[in-house]
Amino acid sequence: MSITRFGISLEHRLLKRFDSLIRKKDYASRSEAIRDLIRDSLVTEEWESSTTETVGTITLVYSHDIRELSDNLNDIQHQYHQLVKSTMHIHLDGHNCLEVVVVKGRAKDIKSVADRLIGTKGVKHGKLIATTTGKRLK
Amino acid sequence: MSITRFGISLEHRLLKRFDSLIRKKDYASRSEAIRDLIRDSLVTEEWESSTTETVGTITLVYSHDIRELSDNLNDIQHQYHQLVKSTMHIHLDGHNCLEVVVVKGRAKDIKSVADRLIGTKGVKHGKLIATTTGKRLK
Amino acid sequence: MSITRFGISLEHRLLKRFDSLIRKKDYASRSEAIRDLIRDSLVTEEWESSTTETVGTITLVYSHDIRELSDNLNDIQHQYHQLVKSTMHIHLDGHNCLEVVVVKGRAKDIKSVADRLIGTKGVKHGKLIATTTGKRLK
Amino acid sequence: MSITRFGISLEHRLLKRFDSLIRKKDYASRSEAIRDLIRDSLVTEEWESSTTETVGTITLVYSHDIRELSDNLNDIQHQYHQLVKSTMHIHLDGHNCLEVVVVKGRAKDIKSVADRLIGTKGVKHGKLIATTTGKRLK
Repeated sequence: MSITRFGISLEHRLLKRFDSLIRKKDYASRSEAIRDLIRDSLVTEEWESSTTETVGTITLVYSHDIRELSDNLNDIQHQYHQLVKSTMHIHLDGHNCLEVVVVKGRAKDIKSVADRLIGTKGVKHGKLIATTTGKRLK
Repeated sequence: MSITRFGISLEHRLLKRFDSLIRKKDYASRSEAIRDLIRDSLVTEEWESSTTETVGTITLVYSHDIRELSDNLNDIQHQYHQLVKSTMHIHLDGHNCLEVVVVKGRAKDIKSVADRLIGTKGVKHGKLIATTTGKRLK
Repeated sequence: MSITRFGISLEHRLLKRFDSLIRKKDYASRSEAIRDLIRDSLVTEEWESSTTETVGTITLVYSHDIRELSDNLNDIQHQYHQLVKSTMHIHLDGHNCLEVVVVKGRAKDIKSVADRLIGTKGVKHGKLIATTTGKRLK
Repeated sequence: MSITRFGISLEHRLLKRFDSLIRKKDYASRSEAIRDLIRDSLVTEEWESSTTETVGTITLVYSHDIRELSDNLNDIQHQYHQLVKSTMHIHLDGHNCLEVVVVKGRAKDIKSVADRLIGTKGVKHGKLIATTTGKRLK
């Protein structure tokens, strides 16, 4: 992993405001904050590609009082077993469960899995976030 | 849990397009799809409140080749142990790890934990998603 | 324009919360609020299509102290004259201008115009929003 | 306006990917692309503040076949005349109008105007984007 160093110029006042935002967000350094902005823009692009392998996490909140719901969610995950890497389940309270499903594949396929899971009757809230395999971010 | 039934009117062509979107997204029914839109708008509002307890999941991708990084992430989670409910770790490949951290608390506090974790040197990509305890969604 | 009326069922408590959100947002009626959620999901889909004609508005903030900047922005808009419908210019203060550019075409082409304009040296802030021709929303 | 120059370090491969993204988006230079990322993060923060004056543009698409709709939208804008800077109207086709309303004020107040306008019966699609007065971005 070879590192390149380069200079950027910024209006002084803007830099001061950015430095204060960085402190608020607890960044280790200015470089690290800018690297995060750069990597985030690359992940956005990664998700617009139709071929690159990428990673998404799907968060689902549902009531475990609904019959067969967790079986149904399980079935869907099994149908996509080649994409679904892992699932974590949390008991939020006596009734509500949260499940996080990590999926690896092409953006399009990850979105299909997410649509299936979020669309399942009884799921109260579901959301997909686009992250990355990390491979192309170094 | 008492159910209310009410009518809504929609232009015929619009309804046809919505029905085709629903099929594409595998919703069980039109009611279920509309309930999802409604619940999603309520979760958005929940996150604008400064007092309501809510839930977020933070996804982090980082290289496990970086010394002490996973210790650092661990330390931060311990500092916020009253908020952090659970963490799942996945080995994406020989170098890259994905971690999902589920956090419960006020939106503002969840954002602080996310900022701390995402800002940690070595984290390649991090994202917070806003979900819900599910309590107020029934 | 023919109207279809159909029923949806919702947990009573959820409906109460939605009704209070609707009041806060000044919606004329529950039907109108739900129609907005439905239309918004259709616009999102419209922007994922590669062929449908759609509309975007690009907002730019820039300093008019920078030489030739407004000429450059103008040139770009002329290159895309078949897409650019109209532009509004506002003098925010002695130095800052805001320009809103309305663009009609395929999502992909609208994004290209937006990238060109936002990437122009001297533009302080730029953002594209995805809206619609309205044709397919009735 | 004084300029500060500073260095940042980035993995070589990451920089190459960023450079290719920059070319795709037609940025004048790497510095300019990074400044845009920085300014965008500052605008996001500006909108989380409850006191800073900022700017938003609201895009509305509606049918001009609906009686009194444009009068209603006009009335709302007049009620907020101290915030509404300017409005542009475009005839998208024989039936559909697009209106862009530029609003200056505190984020909270801009959101109120947007909620009122978007919630008006007959508005097919409406969206607010958060931009800036530009004053604090130099």
